[in-house]
Amino acid sequence: MTSAVPSPVLVVGCGLIGTSVALALAERGAQVHLEDHDPRNVGVAAEAGAGTSDPVEAPELVVVATPPAAVVPAVEDALRRFPDAVVTDVASVKAAIVEAVDDPRFVGGHPMAGKERSGPAAGSGQLFEGRSWAIVPGERSASSAVDLLERTVVEIGAVPRRFGPRAHDEAVALVSHVPHLMANLTASLLDGAPDGHVDLAGQGLRDVTRIARSDADLWVDILGHNSSAITPLLTTLRDRLDTLIGAVGEDPSAVDGLLKQGRAGTTTIPGKHGDLPTDVTSVFVPIDDTPGELSRLFGDAAEVVNIEDLRIDHEVGRPVGLVEIVVLSGRADTLVEAMRAKGWSAYR
Amino acid sequence: MTSAVPSPVLVVGCGLIGTSVALALAERGAQVHLEDHDPRNVGVAAEAGAGTSDPVEAPELVVVATPPAAVVPAVEDALRRFPDAVVTDVASVKAAIVEAVDDPRFVGGHPMAGKERSGPAAGSGQLFEGRSWAIVPGERSASSAVDLLERTVVEIGAVPRRFGPRAHDEAVALVSHVPHLMANLTASLLDGAPDGHVDLAGQGLRDVTRIARSDADLWVDILGHNSSAITPLLTTLRDRLDTLIGAVGEDPSAVDGLLKQGRAGTTTIPGKHGDLPTDVTSVFVPIDDTPGELSRLFGDAAEVVNIEDLRIDHEVGRPVGLVEIVVLSGRADTLVEAMRAKGWSAYR
Repeated sequence: MTSAVPSPVLVVGCGLIGTSVALALAERGAQVHLEDHDPRNVGVAAEAGAGTSDPVEAPELVVVATPPAAVVPAVEDALRRFPDAVVTDVASVKAAIVEAVDDPRFVGGHPMAGKERSGPAAGSGQLFEGRSWAIVPGERSASSAVDLLERTVVEIGAVPRRFGPRAHDEAVALVSHVPHLMANLTASLLDGAPDGHVDLAGQGLRDVTRIARSDADLWVDILGHNSSAITPLLTTLRDRLDTLIGAVGEDPSAVDGLLKQGRAGTTTIPGKHGDLPTDVTSVFVPIDDTPGELSRLFGDAAEVVNIEDLRIDHEVGRPVGLVEIVVLSGRADTLVEAMRAKGWSAYR
Repeated sequence: MTSAVPSPVLVVGCGLIGTSVALALAERGAQVHLEDHDPRNVGVAAEAGAGTSDPVEAPELVVVATPPAAVVPAVEDALRRFPDAVVTDVASVKAAIVEAVDDPRFVGGHPMAGKERSGPAAGSGQLFEGRSWAIVPGERSASSAVDLLERTVVEIGAVPRRFGPRAHDEAVALVSHVPHLMANLTASLLDGAPDGHVDLAGQGLRDVTRIARSDADLWVDILGHNSSAITPLLTTLRDRLDTLIGAVGEDPSAVDGLLKQGRAGTTTIPGKHGDLPTDVTSVFVPIDDTPGELSRLFGDAAEVVNIEDLRIDHEVGRPVGLVEIVVLSGRADTLVEAMRAKGWSAYR
């Protein structure tokens, strides 16, 4: 256990996450072995440098990265085959799995990465850089097993976050599953909307509905496994929506209360570096849509300030874009002046 | 009427939008006169180059940019004082105003810009670059008045979109007001959530809830004026939410249907240049959070491909960011290879 990463490691299931874990560990010197019910996936992952299809004798760690429905049997199989190995999984819903397995050598895990792509060819050893990785021990998990998993997660660049199984499932319902459903519901109104109505859409609509583009099949699976955490939140939202329907146009103070509650909610979301959102201001710069303009813009801006965030607002119907550069409020005027001096039409 | 912009112009109300219209017209050679019930606003706008506080004799165009509740009396006052002028407004809800005024020289308007800031100091002549601007004639509006407004809007860089008053209000309910409320409701769940749950938040949650940060007071006003268009949409959403609550964990095919409806809705949103979303792929590049890194990244990327869109995903708890560069799918592999050759850890 003096090496930085466990070795050898067996990865069971060479989809996006499994292949990415394998690549991240292999890049850090681990001997990685790969299994998948489809040998083509192993071939693609091995070809990418994720490990070998040779059988493993005594892995220090087994990472089960199969689809959700196959996780429990795969974990139990691994615990049986390798009596000294620590076993973990990467499924996005945890309580049912952690309660079903209940073995000292098993610790549940869930990396917060990668939902928008799939397959071994999309794998990357950098996928977990800076991402949260939920560490979800069961009641009987050995502390040495938890330590091994946390250390491994840190080594591949992620940030371990310890959760109980039900708290984990409630947390992902809150920050991921329910927002996904709300984005989908909002977008569903656009399906069949009168011609021309979306011509008035701005960046706000694009932001709210972006995650609704994801693969529906994967989400049906995820949502089905976490309905007990999702349903109470949806019920709360339904009640608030009912209140809103009664209040819009009738009771401004009730509408105000709901809007302020939402605004307060946004302040709880961690910003850069895990801090609470700082005092930032947006500077807007229109650009021509020609190659190299963005590059020139960032070159000019980065000479003057540190860029906290940025967005490109696509302008409808014209070959022009509006770039929003978010900087610390005390630096906004400086940036505007500097950009204007370089010939840009910058404004706050 | 041979000049590109009307002149002289009177702008009534020197907030963000009024000042920005004045600046845009003044920059294009119009003689602009400014009025506001608060002389300090006129002072700030005039100081910025938006026009003069001198009284106007016979404006060709009057732009009423007061708060919503003051629009109708201000429009009627302008029609009385200036018997040859075309009069327009910029309020974000139109049916009640256009139906109340009903004069051949009045044409309603609504620029889709600027809601996240306020005040004359935030004004900019570039604010309307590439933005849609709804042109909303009443039943008796003269076509010459409509033409004048459309020509003016084009001159200051916006894209005129002709709407009937009720269609306009339904469209903004659909693409702006209701998405805003859904973002707020989603964010409201975070207010009072257990400690640590938001540690698992990713970029999706930030996107969905971003517009919920806006000023609540302004939104209470907007929503109150458009309740007749908003309420039916909220009721539809409530019914779909009820269906979803019954279906999650019980009826995967019903959940699948709702998700697919949302996904279909996202495809109706205009992308770049007003086209439907094209076939694009994201390339991910982790970067250190040091000044100049973004600039160097864009310089390297822009040598190889045209960047369709980009986002920075702030990594929680670590001084590192993940930049998502969206390019045409056929260019993604080229970009990944070129970036790796330059030392970046790029992946699809």
